[in-house]
Formats: sequence, structure tokens, C-alpha cells
Amino acid sequence: MTDPREIVGPLNGLEVPRYAGLTTFARLPRREDVADFDVAIVGVPFDSGVTYRPGARFGPAHIRQSSRLLRPYNPSLGVEPFRFQQVVDAGDIACNPFDILEAIDQIETGSLALMDRGQGLVTLGGDHTIALPLLRAMKKVHGPVALVHFDAHLDTWPTYFGAPYTHGTPFRRASEEGLFVPAKSAHVGIRGSLYGTRDLSDDGELGFQMFNCLEVDRVGVPAIIERLRDQVGDLPTYLSIDVDVLDPAFAPGTGTPESAGLSSRELMALVRGFSGANIVGGDVVEVSPTYDHAEITGIVAANLVYEYVSLFEAARAR
Amino acid sequence: MTDPREIVGPLNGLEVPRYAGLTTFARLPRREDVADFDVAIVGVPFDSGVTYRPGARFGPAHIRQSSRLLRPYNPSLGVEPFRFQQVVDAGDIACNPFDILEAIDQIETGSLALMDRGQGLVTLGGDHTIALPLLRAMKKVHGPVALVHFDAHLDTWPTYFGAPYTHGTPFRRASEEGLFVPAKSAHVGIRGSLYGTRDLSDDGELGFQMFNCLEVDRVGVPAIIERLRDQVGDLPTYLSIDVDVLDPAFAPGTGTPESAGLSSRELMALVRGFSGANIVGGDVVEVSPTYDHAEITGIVAANLVYEYVSLFEAARAR
Amino acid sequence: MTDPREIVGPLNGLEVPRYAGLTTFARLPRREDVADFDVAIVGVPFDSGVTYRPGARFGPAHIRQSSRLLRPYNPSLGVEPFRFQQVVDAGDIACNPFDILEAIDQIETGSLALMDRGQGLVTLGGDHTIALPLLRAMKKVHGPVALVHFDAHLDTWPTYFGAPYTHGTPFRRASEEGLFVPAKSAHVGIRGSLYGTRDLSDDGELGFQMFNCLEVDRVGVPAIIERLRDQVGDLPTYLSIDVDVLDPAFAPGTGTPESAGLSSRELMALVRGFSGANIVGGDVVEVSPTYDHAEITGIVAANLVYEYVSLFEAARAR
Amino acid sequence: MTDPREIVGPLNGLEVPRYAGLTTFARLPRREDVADFDVAIVGVPFDSGVTYRPGARFGPAHIRQSSRLLRPYNPSLGVEPFRFQQVVDAGDIACNPFDILEAIDQIETGSLALMDRGQGLVTLGGDHTIALPLLRAMKKVHGPVALVHFDAHLDTWPTYFGAPYTHGTPFRRASEEGLFVPAKSAHVGIRGSLYGTRDLSDDGELGFQMFNCLEVDRVGVPAIIERLRDQVGDLPTYLSIDVDVLDPAFAPGTGTPESAGLSSRELMALVRGFSGANIVGGDVVEVSPTYDHAEITGIVAANLVYEYVSLFEAARAR
Amino acid sequence: MTDPREIVGPLNGLEVPRYAGLTTFARLPRREDVADFDVAIVGVPFDSGVTYRPGARFGPAHIRQSSRLLRPYNPSLGVEPFRFQQVVDAGDIACNPFDILEAIDQIETGSLALMDRGQGLVTLGGDHTIALPLLRAMKKVHGPVALVHFDAHLDTWPTYFGAPYTHGTPFRRASEEGLFVPAKSAHVGIRGSLYGTRDLSDDGELGFQMFNCLEVDRVGVPAIIERLRDQVGDLPTYLSIDVDVLDPAFAPGTGTPESAGLSSRELMALVRGFSGANIVGGDVVEVSPTYDHAEITGIVAANLVYEYVSLFEAARAR
Amino acid sequence: MTDPREIVGPLNGLEVPRYAGLTTFARLPRREDVADFDVAIVGVPFDSGVTYRPGARFGPAHIRQSSRLLRPYNPSLGVEPFRFQQVVDAGDIACNPFDILEAIDQIETGSLALMDRGQGLVTLGGDHTIALPLLRAMKKVHGPVALVHFDAHLDTWPTYFGAPYTHGTPFRRASEEGLFVPAKSAHVGIRGSLYGTRDLSDDGELGFQMFNCLEVDRVGVPAIIERLRDQVGDLPTYLSIDVDVLDPAFAPGTGTPESAGLSSRELMALVRGFSGANIVGGDVVEVSPTYDHAEITGIVAANLVYEYVSLFEAARAR
Repeated sequence: MTDPREIVGPLNGLEVPRYAGLTTFARLPRREDVADFDVAIVGVPFDSGVTYRPGARFGPAHIRQSSRLLRPYNPSLGVEPFRFQQVVDAGDIACNPFDILEAIDQIETGSLALMDRGQGLVTLGGDHTIALPLLRAMKKVHGPVALVHFDAHLDTWPTYFGAPYTHGTPFRRASEEGLFVPAKSAHVGIRGSLYGTRDLSDDGELGFQMFNCLEVDRVGVPAIIERLRDQVGDLPTYLSIDVDVLDPAFAPGTGTPESAGLSSRELMALVRGFSGANIVGGDVVEVSPTYDHAEITGIVAANLVYEYVSLFEAARAR
Repeated sequence: MTDPREIVGPLNGLEVPRYAGLTTFARLPRREDVADFDVAIVGVPFDSGVTYRPGARFGPAHIRQSSRLLRPYNPSLGVEPFRFQQVVDAGDIACNPFDILEAIDQIETGSLALMDRGQGLVTLGGDHTIALPLLRAMKKVHGPVALVHFDAHLDTWPTYFGAPYTHGTPFRRASEEGLFVPAKSAHVGIRGSLYGTRDLSDDGELGFQMFNCLEVDRVGVPAIIERLRDQVGDLPTYLSIDVDVLDPAFAPGTGTPESAGLSSRELMALVRGFSGANIVGGDVVEVSPTYDHAEITGIVAANLVYEYVSLFEAARAR
Repeated sequence: MTDPREIVGPLNGLEVPRYAGLTTFARLPRREDVADFDVAIVGVPFDSGVTYRPGARFGPAHIRQSSRLLRPYNPSLGVEPFRFQQVVDAGDIACNPFDILEAIDQIETGSLALMDRGQGLVTLGGDHTIALPLLRAMKKVHGPVALVHFDAHLDTWPTYFGAPYTHGTPFRRASEEGLFVPAKSAHVGIRGSLYGTRDLSDDGELGFQMFNCLEVDRVGVPAIIERLRDQVGDLPTYLSIDVDVLDPAFAPGTGTPESAGLSSRELMALVRGFSGANIVGGDVVEVSPTYDHAEITGIVAANLVYEYVSLFEAARAR
Repeated sequence: MTDPREIVGPLNGLEVPRYAGLTTFARLPRREDVADFDVAIVGVPFDSGVTYRPGARFGPAHIRQSSRLLRPYNPSLGVEPFRFQQVVDAGDIACNPFDILEAIDQIETGSLALMDRGQGLVTLGGDHTIALPLLRAMKKVHGPVALVHFDAHLDTWPTYFGAPYTHGTPFRRASEEGLFVPAKSAHVGIRGSLYGTRDLSDDGELGFQMFNCLEVDRVGVPAIIERLRDQVGDLPTYLSIDVDVLDPAFAPGTGTPESAGLSSRELMALVRGFSGANIVGGDVVEVSPTYDHAEITGIVAANLVYEYVSLFEAARAR
Repeated sequence: MTDPREIVGPLNGLEVPRYAGLTTFARLPRREDVADFDVAIVGVPFDSGVTYRPGARFGPAHIRQSSRLLRPYNPSLGVEPFRFQQVVDAGDIACNPFDILEAIDQIETGSLALMDRGQGLVTLGGDHTIALPLLRAMKKVHGPVALVHFDAHLDTWPTYFGAPYTHGTPFRRASEEGLFVPAKSAHVGIRGSLYGTRDLSDDGELGFQMFNCLEVDRVGVPAIIERLRDQVGDLPTYLSIDVDVLDPAFAPGTGTPESAGLSSRELMALVRGFSGANIVGGDVVEVSPTYDHAEITGIVAANLVYEYVSLFEAARAR
Repeated sequence: MTDPREIVGPLNGLEVPRYAGLTTFARLPRREDVADFDVAIVGVPFDSGVTYRPGARFGPAHIRQSSRLLRPYNPSLGVEPFRFQQVVDAGDIACNPFDILEAIDQIETGSLALMDRGQGLVTLGGDHTIALPLLRAMKKVHGPVALVHFDAHLDTWPTYFGAPYTHGTPFRRASEEGLFVPAKSAHVGIRGSLYGTRDLSDDGELGFQMFNCLEVDRVGVPAIIERLRDQVGDLPTYLSIDVDVLDPAFAPGTGTPESAGLSSRELMALVRGFSGANIVGGDVVEVSPTYDHAEITGIVAANLVYEYVSLFEAARAR
């Protein structure tokens, strides 16, 4: 662990106005600017796996720009996420927009390079295709993880237009490759129309626990948190958030919006519910800036990333 | 009832990408493309009755474009709305923008033509003026209906600028013409400032049950559903949704927005609460696309139409 | 008190369409158009104190344009706010954009001139810097007030870039000047990241009661209302609303948005909870129109102003 | 003529910031605020005659808000339009959105009332329907006028959907009523697809000189100005500008945009070309704000109005 | 040739308002609605070849919606494009978003099917990748064509990220495959920064005549038209327009915008300059609607398509 | 001069997609990433001097994001601006938003530090206030410069609201301080309404040559270039571009837009006209992103910066 006295934090908002300075996440140092790091935030500007509205390739730049207001103390979790652990903005993993297989390899290689000593990794998408190589990297470092998947959609379809690797299929592939422990994993926030009843039964066979949006509504966020924590236990845990788990009112800037979703207050509370859990990584995907307005999607995405980093700190402090 | 084997459903999203193909509702066949139908979805691009922001004339085209993501299985109600009943997009009823009376006649005639054998009818507005001719048509086919009216506003004003037929008056006229059964009817979601206490007392004399927005907040959606179902009983029931019943955060694309409204999750749940009821028709009105953003209003409107069609299927299956 | 028969109300929406006529708040008369008034609505187009997104200088014009739909009866509180008390639009207080100190003096002088006989004052911001001169004026007329502050942020920072008067510091200065009674005052809706734990402890020393957003979520709006009313008692009470207390979904048009905020329904209910209290003034600040969409921020701001005026009427009627 | 010493000009931009103060055109006094006036600027928020995108009912409010930057000296024409003639903002003529005939009467009556002593009149539309009653009023005061009509469209169609009074027909009706002198009148900027060759031949029978957009392009603005001045001579001249004469790049905020139009520089030069002519009135119509962006349409419309007022001053000074 | 009496034209704008009815190009019949056709307009919603801003997959739907104002007579060319030749909207060619090679085959097959008897073909993109399969189809029907390419960019790069088929490479591939006659072909409107001088020399080796944007500016549109007509002579000619040949002011809705481009008036004139030429096909590509505003890009694209259809009519009439 | 082999250029667009990677201007290295540099591009996010629409504090970040498409060869000038001279992105100069005098000092100090060995400096504004400290720095390094000022406005007003340092006054102050050589300096593109004839006469006394917008229109760009080159001769020359010199159609994203301005093609040509001149610095100011659309203002601003850097290279190569 880096000595706290050596930690380089974000630019000081009382010295450099928040709208000034190059655009790194939360105005943190770049990876090149520090000797070492504990948690890396990396962008994966890839959206060649989308089936409807594209644009998530501009997601990382947008989330960074929307993160300029983040301050160093998180009162909801009672932690200072940038003070004791060195957090860096590791830039973007360049990946091929015309060759999905090559891109997936680039993402696995690029993310593994950031975790070579077990550091925490938080990823800014990009579309949900990227969760597959990220989970591959996670397994290599941590073994199969508990996977908690926040999304309006199951993302466990077999193929789309004959393509096995798209933003609708990552968790099917991940299941086939044994990247997560089904009995310790869950979908949260599922809703909207499906292709058929088989979508649910096929998904059920993969072993996910399902907390759909109607269930969240019925039992309330605290009860869902309790069940999720029971579900994941102490296993190394990966959180994957598709921003379309939020209602379009809270996250218009996304590619396959579904009505009647979570509020940002509910989602933030659900994520904070993992305080003390054994978090090893997380992503926020499917932010498509051209559909955003006044950065409302970007800001909630930036805050979710901030909560991830805070969860790392909460785990470290424990 | 049409033989299921002959039903023509939406374009298959695994063969034709959802952004491709001509823009019919949910990518369903046009009326001309099938021999017969059970449920028609029809647009009424008319907004000459609006008192503030116009633009609902572009509502049908916008809702159709926003409906491309709808898939064939509705898990919330457990039905496949396009599989056993033939649903069609019947295009738009052309109506005169310069002559409200003629337009009202055109709408009545046009909608009656789609219900000549008792088929279900779902209408994409257009402003709320169109509810009057739609209710006239409903009465001719089904007798006076139970009317459930979701709206921020009462829409029972006597006249506006001397005009008896506007988007603020349809249910006053409908009451005078005996188009619905007051004791079986209700307003849901009413809120916002009024002209005076007489607005409420005048409306009260018409016999509507009133579930205003504060009441929904106080007792919760399940309790409201129970009361609404008691209210309408088994009577042929017509649902009319002005999207301004939603908070502007959830439906910015409308003409007379009022703060502090329902969420899309609440409204979708309220509509689904009619599963098993004797639904004969429904409309979604006052979608004004130039005020929409990222199709968030269009998408919730499309989902409400999808729920209507699902209610027809739920009733049929019963 | 003006004789009710002489009161000049808003333009009649049945004679002059709501989109017509010069843009005063709620289409009320200007101050110059009536002999006297009971409640003044005044704009303070000043945003030189902002630390992030500017633009609140256009807030008053935007709130006025967004107020055209307001009607004369408030059914939630059961009052007619424009019928028995003369309400006027007093225009804008011109203030120097290049000299914060001069601007603060201009605002104090301008607002005092509107309260010289104890009239009610409602202010359309502008950024939160303006609360300081408004509270100075309030103290001169009413003595130290109970202050209820709705905001995502504490606004009690000591200085910013060496500047003592900014939108992040008004309540620190107001505390130092004894403009409000700490034991009777409260923050409501606080959330989001902070500079450090000292932000909370420093603020705590000022004596505010704190109802943060998580607390509102946990105990519910009615319980918060009860505590707030206990808190303020019968003291002359000033309400100050930074629209960023709302979630960005409900108020995108603001300068320092924070995720996971209140809904407009919650905020409207909280404000209405002061019915019967001894309200002497209120403001709605930080509306930045270029970030707004379809006037959703402007409309909720206009409705909050309408509730303020209704609270004056409720107090008067009592 | 009012004594120059008594003239009330716009708010001083060095005392009241341009974004402050109630929204009158160019921050001029309202009609009620001065004893008398020489030129009135009046809004006609009417758009019930439009055939495609509505919204021009919000045009007057938008043009006023977009006029805040106008300063008192016009260097292109070398005049101070607000110094020697009293110019006022006469507010809006309220007109019935549901009854075109009544609205037309209201507009004629309202505009005549502003011209009772031969004052200049500049009108902010509203859709082009309003040119008919304005020309009726002009004829009553000045006799048949020379009419110069800047537009992408002829607006001389016979009827539309059976309606004789729409935004596509005003100059056909005006011709039938003898409101202008055909041999002294012209269309400028016509372009785009038509219903048929008869559109041109029918229009030709009305006697207009035609300077279509291709012609402007071919011979250049100065040559067109020369011909137009020859055309109108010394006859009392009325200028009517549909902002769609501009290319959509320069005026996106309009109802029936046509590609390949004039630039704002060309149009402004064309209007200034009437310096010294016997101008008696002018209008700028078809500004539909919801389609505008960053006020670019509003600003050019405001500048065109400013040029009109300058033309009055140039004529007066002569 | 179809008998004129049997031709089905667009919906009549005097019977069905232009905002009403399903969204086909110019409200023309669909291919299924007529027995045969002379000119097909087809969409190719494909954007997996883009290197910067995606979104052109929504281009065909957007251009269709933006084409509703097109009327049946083109006065600039003096033709009625829909009266004597049967023009249809052939819908979209469904193509695989995840497999560029398969998509290219689908586009070639789909377009060939529409040209099997030598009919004219106009294509709505989609990104510029699609020009390759379209030119392959053209060659099969007409032999190598004269190609006139309007674009800010050369689109003759060798590969991008190792991919031979992208929106930056179609004309390199087309050259290698001998799909056009270099000596009869030209680039028009080229501008902006390049990778190096080799871009120009490599392109030069392909044999294109180059009329860059500076040249158009210097010699003027009529001179360029003359040279282009000399260039193509009587050879079957294909026109390909990337809307980024227009300045971003005229076409913001595109993927790789370059400053200092053509105006819509210049581009429309250039296209009309081919009146009487032996046009066999054309495309308008790279319309990306989420970056458009008020349909200004969509409208100019729709008008360019209209000019293409008019060129077919002009050639036919000759 | 740095050895070409050591120059670090922009990220290669064939290896890292243009939408990927941290956001520096044209994806150039940061100052910290190279040993030395020849030309620095620096942001000055300051807008506390604006009199109307604020927001230029976000200008530098927006111009950088809009510069991602810039490629390494400039064919218009025939130079490779990043190959032989080391160009860097020097980040932003942090300056106090609440104290204009301190900010001006910070800007002077910060810019001087980048020019200590006579390097070229290009500045991204920020509002036009910043030109004063930039000219102060220029004078210290180069002596009084020839100043060419592209703007709709003179920016030579004496004070505004008593403030001597605002975006309307920099060139008055600069004149008083002898920072430029009046006889070698010029305004280009001036237009729009003024406070009075004295604006022009007062400005005339400062000695600027004036090429207003009407003049550019009348004589054409090549003639203006010739006169400007004569004007500046071989003196060290500073170019200052307020983007509002462009028509709002070409640059909506600015603070005080004026109709009837230059096109981007004209402005780019004017700037390129300085090829071979003795350029020592330049700025592009008044880009206010919240008013921009689809980055059209950002893109033209980025291209103007690119031309500046190309002018440095052209001068160096000479």
C-alpha cells in the first residue's frame, strides 16, 4: 500500500476552478503522473456491439467531463476515497472499432495490465460487450467472481445477427466460460418487453438470482440490499451497471432505454449497499452522450464511479 | 378470432435491425398488409385544440419511431400481445387542421371504420380534443363506457375562447352526450393550479371519482388500482392517458406540463392494474415531440400503447 | 390591506391566450401598474458568484416565461393567492456583474425598498450569493429569521478563491452577521460529495438542523415536515430553495447538479408543509436556463414561487 | 411628431445589464409607459393557420427575448432609430386560436388602433395568415400599398383543406381585396418545390414581380435592390418577411423550411436597400422558437425589426 | 415505361396533411403498393464503418421524416419528378451491423434486386461504406460508371485499423475493382486536414479529377458545373454525396464534420447542373440525426434526393 | 529548433481511434510529456468579463474535444504543422473567477511563462477580457505588435458598469498601455448596432484600420487579405479572433451573437491569408459551449487554432 503522504489526489478545487484543467476523471492524476496506484479508472470507448442507438464510444470522455464536480469526501459512506489509496485515470484502452474479436482481446489485455498486482479496476464504457473481456481479466486475477448486474436487460441472449459477441450477450458468454459463480450472482432492475418466455427460462438456467424492477418497487431498496449482500457473501465481487437500469428521465443518454426504471437515488443506494463487501472491480456502461442532456446521465455515471472507488476504500479501511 | 398460425407479427428484431424498416408502431404490419385484424393502432395527428404549446400533430409519427424497441413478450402481464391477436398499424386518420368540427367528424368516422366488428382500438394523439369523437365511436359500438382518465387536468371546462371543442373540454362534452357512465368513471393524477374552486365543484357534478396526485402519493399505487377496478367493474372500459399526468421529468414532450406528477413506473403500474378488465379502447395523447428529448416521452407513450395491447390480449386470454 | 375589490389579478387566460402578452410572473401586473401591493415578486439576475456552470443571470426571465400556465386557484392549499392580496411583478434589481460587493449592496437596497411596509417578498435568482443581501434586508424588517434552506449543498464554506461572497458562502456570512436564528433553522436535502468531514463539523457549529437527502428518503416527507414546523415555530420564516436540491432529472437547468436528489413532488410537498407558518420571504435560485430543457426546471421553479405566494395568502387568511 | 427631448428610449445597457429587466422589444418602453408614439412594435401570437410545424404563437415572446442586445445606433444606415421618433412595444394583440375569422378581425382591429394617426407599425408574427388583416389595416390608412414579400413560398394558394384563410393564402386574398398594387409589388427569395406549374402561372396572374432565389444568386443583391426600388417607387410600401426566406442554417426556427435559401447577410442588405423608401409597415413572421437554437432565428428576426424601425427613421429624417 | 395514367404519386397534401400518414420518402407509395416502378428510393441503415461519430443507421428514417414537405413540381429543373415515372420507397435493406463483409453483400444483393430491369436507384445512407456495394451493383447493370463524388474527404484511404471496408475507403476499393472510369470521375468539395501529402498523391494516382472547396470558391459554381459535365460526358453517371461536403452550419447532423464547406445553395446548384446527363444512380450518405437540429440536415438531404429523382425525370423526358 | 526526429506529434489516428484518449488539443502531447516545445496551446477558462451570455469558461475544454478530427497535414497552406515544430497542449491557466484584476495578472504571468524563449503561443478563450494580459505578455517578449482583431464588436469601450477590465474594453486598455502599433493594426468583420456614432469616432482615434463586414462583402476576401498584409507588414503580428465575427449560423455557441456575419469559409481564408507573416501569437475567444450545437462552433474554433499553428510552421519554414 502506498504511503498516504505520497498519495496524489485530485486537483484542488480551491486553487484550480473545477471547469479548468485537462479532463481526467475527478481531476485525478493520470497513470503516467504517479509511480504506482491502487485503483485505476480506465475508459473503453467501444460501441461496435450495440443493437440500437450507438454513441457509447464517446462515453468515457463524457463521464470524465461530467465528473469535475466530485469532491474528496463521501459522506454517505464516510470515506475519503482519494486520500489513502492512490487512484489514477489510466486513460482509454484503444480498441478496434471494426473487429469485435480483436477489440475484446485488446480490452482483456489492457485491463489485465492494470490489475497485475491486484489493483482495483473501474471501467467507463463503452457498450456492454466490454463486460466479457473485463470478466475474463477478473477471473485471471481473482478467480470466478460474484457478479451483480444492474440493467434493464438480461444481456444473456445467445447471439444477435449471428454474432456471439455483442452488447446483448456478454453474460451468456461469461457463463459459458465460467467467469462468475452463478449461485453468487444476480440481475437487478430487469424490466421491459422480451422476445419470449424463453428469455427468462434460458436466463434462469444460468443460475442468476433475479431482482427485477417490479420487485425492487415492491420490497424496497433496503430489503434488496440485504438479499444482494447475502447473495454475494465474501466472494470477490464485480458490479456491472448498464445505465439503462435507470429510468430514461434519469438517464436519457443511453442506447436502449426502457420506461419505468430505477431512480438515481435508488441506484446510488443499491451500490452503496455493498460497503464492506469484497469488491474487486466495477463498470458503468452504455452512456451515449449525444442523447444526454445537461450531463444528467454523465453526472450520475460519474457518481456511480465515485461510489465504486469509495467501496474500494471502505474495503481497504476494513 | 384469427388462427394464431396466420397472425402476422412485428418484424423480427433478429433479422431486421430495430432501427431499419418503415416506421409502423412496434414494426407491426400495416392494416393493408393483412386480411383482417383484432386490434388497430391508429394515429390522429390533430392539435388544433391546444391552448398552449402546440405540436401534438407530430405525436403519432414520434410515438411510432419511439416504439422500435418493443419486443413480443410482456413479462409484467405474462402475455404475448402480438401472437394470438392480429394487431395492425392502421396509419393516421387525416383530419382538417382548420376546422375543428370537421376534424371531429373525420375522427369519429375514421375510428368507427376500424371498430366495425368490435375490434380493439388504440389511438395515438394528437391533443385531447380527439377523445370526444373516440368516445362517440366507442358508445356506438359498446354503449356508454367506464372512462378512466389519467391527466394532470380535468379537461371538463365548459368552453375556451368561446370554442366548445378544445383539448380542455372533451369530457364535459362527453358527459353532456352521455358517452360514459359517470358512476363508473374516474380522473387519476389531477394536480396543479385551477381557475377556481368551481372547477372542482363543476367537475364533481359530472360524477367522476377523483384520484388526484396527492392521493396517489398518500395511499400508493396498489390501493388506487383496487379502487379503480372496483369503480369500473365489468363495464366496457376506455382508458385515456394525457402524458402530462407524468411529471415533466418523465414526459417533457407535452403541451401543458405541470410539476409534481406521476413517475413512469407509477403510471405503467396503474395501467397494468387493468389486466383482466373489459378494455375496449384507449388513447395516449398530448405527446408534442419538439419538446421531447432523447425520445423519453415517446418511449413511455409507446410502452403505454404496448400495455393497452397487452390488456386486450389479457382480456382475450381470459 | 388592499380592498379585494381593487385587487388586479393576472391576465385572464380565457381572454388573452397564455402564450400572449408581455412576460411578467404568472401574467401579474407590474409594480408600476397598481397603486400598492402586498407581495412582490422580484428578479435578481446575478450570477457572478457561481463556481461552475454560469447562466443564472437569465433565471428570472426564464422563470417568468415558464410561469404562464399558472392559474388563480391553488387546490393543494385551498387558497386563491392572487385574489385577496395584491401580488405584483416588481421587475429585476439591476446589479453590477463585475463587482460582487456593489451588487450585494444593490440587492439589499432594492429588496428593502420592496419591503418598506412589511410586504412579502419572493425572489427569483440568480445564484445563491443573493441570499445574503436578502437576509440582511429581512433582518432589518423582521429581525433575525428562521431560515429553512433547501439545497444539495451546505453553502456555508468560508471563502472560495479568497472571495468571501460567492454562491458557496452566503449562509456562513449570514451566520456571522446574525441574520438568522440557528436554533430555528435547517438545511434540507443536503447530499453529494464534500471537501472533507470538516465541512459537516464546521457547518454543525453554525447550529443548523440537518435533514439530508438520505434522511428524507428514510423517514418520508410528512415526518420531515413535522420536524421542520417544530423547528421554525412561529418565528418569521424565510425559505431559500436552490433548485439543485432536486435531482438533475427534475431540474437539469442548474449550475452545480448533484445526483440522487429530491423529486419535484417531494419538494412541492415540503414547501406546502409550511402552510400556516409565519412566512416573510422566500427565494428560488440557481435556475440556469441554457441547461434546461422544455422548461422543466423553469416550470418547477415557477410552481415553487406560486406556492410561496400561496403561503403568504394562507398566513394572511389565518 | 414628439419633441426629441421627450422621447423615451430603451433601457440603458450601461445601467441595467442587457439580460435584466422585463422583456420588451429592444428594452423599449411599453405603450402604456409613454404619452404617445411614432412607431409601434406589436406581437401577434397566432399560428392556427400553419400547415406543417406549429409554434409561431411563441414567436413574439422569443423575438423580444432575442432583441436584448440591440443598441441605439444603426451604423449601416447611419441612423439612431430610437432617438428622434418614439418607438414603443405595444404588447400582443390577443386573438382567438380556435376561430381564424375572429382572429383575423381582432388583428385588423388591433393593428388599426395602433395606426389611427398614421404611425408606423411593425409586427412580430405569428404565422403568415396575419399579413391579410395587417394589409387590410394598411389599406384603410394608406390606400393600396406596394407590397414586397420575402419568402421561400408564394403564399398565393387559393385554399388549403377548404380553408380560405391560412398561412399559404394571405396574398391571394389580399389580391382579391385589392389591398396592394400588383404592378408595384414583388416576391423575393421564392424557391423550393411546388404543387405544379400552375402555382407559378396563377401567381403570375396576380401581377407580382418575381425575384426568386436563383435570380438573387445570379445577379447579386445590389442589382435586386435596384430593381425593387424601381418597382415600389414612392408608393407607401409594406415589407413582409417570412423568415423561411432564409436558409434553414440561418433560420432553423420556422415552420416550413426550404433548403438553399438566402443568408442573413443577404436578407439584411436587401431590407436596408429600402432606406429612403416610403415605408409604412412591415412584419417578420413564422418564427417558431421550439425549432430555434441559441436564438439564431430570434436574433436575425430582431435585427430585421430593428432595420424596419431604422427605415422609418431614415424616411422621417429625409 | 409505365403509362402515366397509372402512376401513383405522393399523398396529396391538400387531402392528407403533410405531417400525417406513414413515413415514406416524400409520402410516395411503398414498393409493395404498386405493380412496378421506374425509380426506387431505398434506405441502407448501416453505420458500422464510421470512424468518429456514429448514428447514420438512423439516417434513412430521418431523411424520410424530413421529406414530408416535398411537393410534386420542381421549378428549378422544370420537371414533375413523380408524374411520368413511377417512383417508390423501397424501404430499407436490412444489413448485419456486426459483420461488414456480410453487410456489403446484403447491400449489393438488395440494390441489384431493385435494378434488375435498369431502374434508377437512389440510396439514403448510412455511412459511406455503402457506396462500394452500390457501385458494384451499378457496374453489373451499367458497366463502369462516371463517378462524381461530393465530399469533404477523399475516402480513398487504403485501410483503417486494418479494415479494408470502412467509410474512409470505398473509392479505393472501387478503383481496385474497376467499378468506375477514373478519367470520367471527380471529387468535389474536398477540404480539411489530411494525414499527409501522400493522401493527395495516392488519390491522384487513382485518376480522379479534383475540384476542391477552395477551387469551387475561386471559380464559382457555374464554371465547376461546366467542367464536371465535360468530365462525365454521356457515360452512365453515378453521384455520391456525403453531406459533410456542406459546411457544418448547413449540415450539423453528420459524423466527421469539416469547417469551411459548401452552402446548401451551392450544392443544390451543383447537383442540378447534371440535368440532362445520363444519371443511373445516386446516394446521400452520412446523415447522423442525433447531431441534427430542426431537421436542417435531413431537409437538405431530402431535397438532394428530390433533385436526383428530378434528374432521372429530366433524362427520361429528354 | 528541435530535431524533427524527436518531435512528438499527435496520437496516430490509425492506432488510437479519434474518439479515444485523453482530451488534449488535436491529441497533442501535454507540456509535461516533452522536454521542450516551440508552440504552446493554452486554455484560459475565464468568463467573468462577459456582459451577456456567460459560459466561455467551458470554452477550452470544448475546443479541445472538438479538435479530435484534426489531421497532421494542412493542404491549404501546404504545411505539416506538428512535424517540424514541437507543439504542446499546455493545459489551462487557472485564474480567479471572482477577482478580474487577479485573473488578469494570472493570465499575464501564465502566458509569459510559456513564451520565455520566444515560443509561439495560441490561446483558447475564455472571453475577450483575456486579450489584454496576452497582449501585455506579447509586448514584453516582442515589443508592441501589429494587432489584427476579428470581431463583430470593437471591444474598445471605455468601461462597463464602471469596470475598466471586461470583454468590451481590452483594446482600449491595450491602446492606452501601448501594447500594439495602431498604424499596423486593424479590426475585421465589425458589424451590428452600436451605442452611438461616438463608438466609431472614439475607436477611430485609437488608430485602427477598419474592415467592417459590409466592406468584406463588397470587395471580397482576397482584397481584404491584401490590405491586411500591407497593414501589418513584417511587424510581429498578433491575431485575435472573437468567434462572433462569424454569423450565428456558423458560430451559435458564443455570448453576444450578431446577425449577418462572416461565413467560416471567409474567416478561414482570411486567417490563411497571413501565411508568411511574422505571427507571434493568436487567440480564439468567446466560445460558449452550452449555446453550441453538434460542436459546429467548437470545430471551427479548433480549425482556426490549427491554422494559427500552421502559420507558425509557414513562418518557420520560410
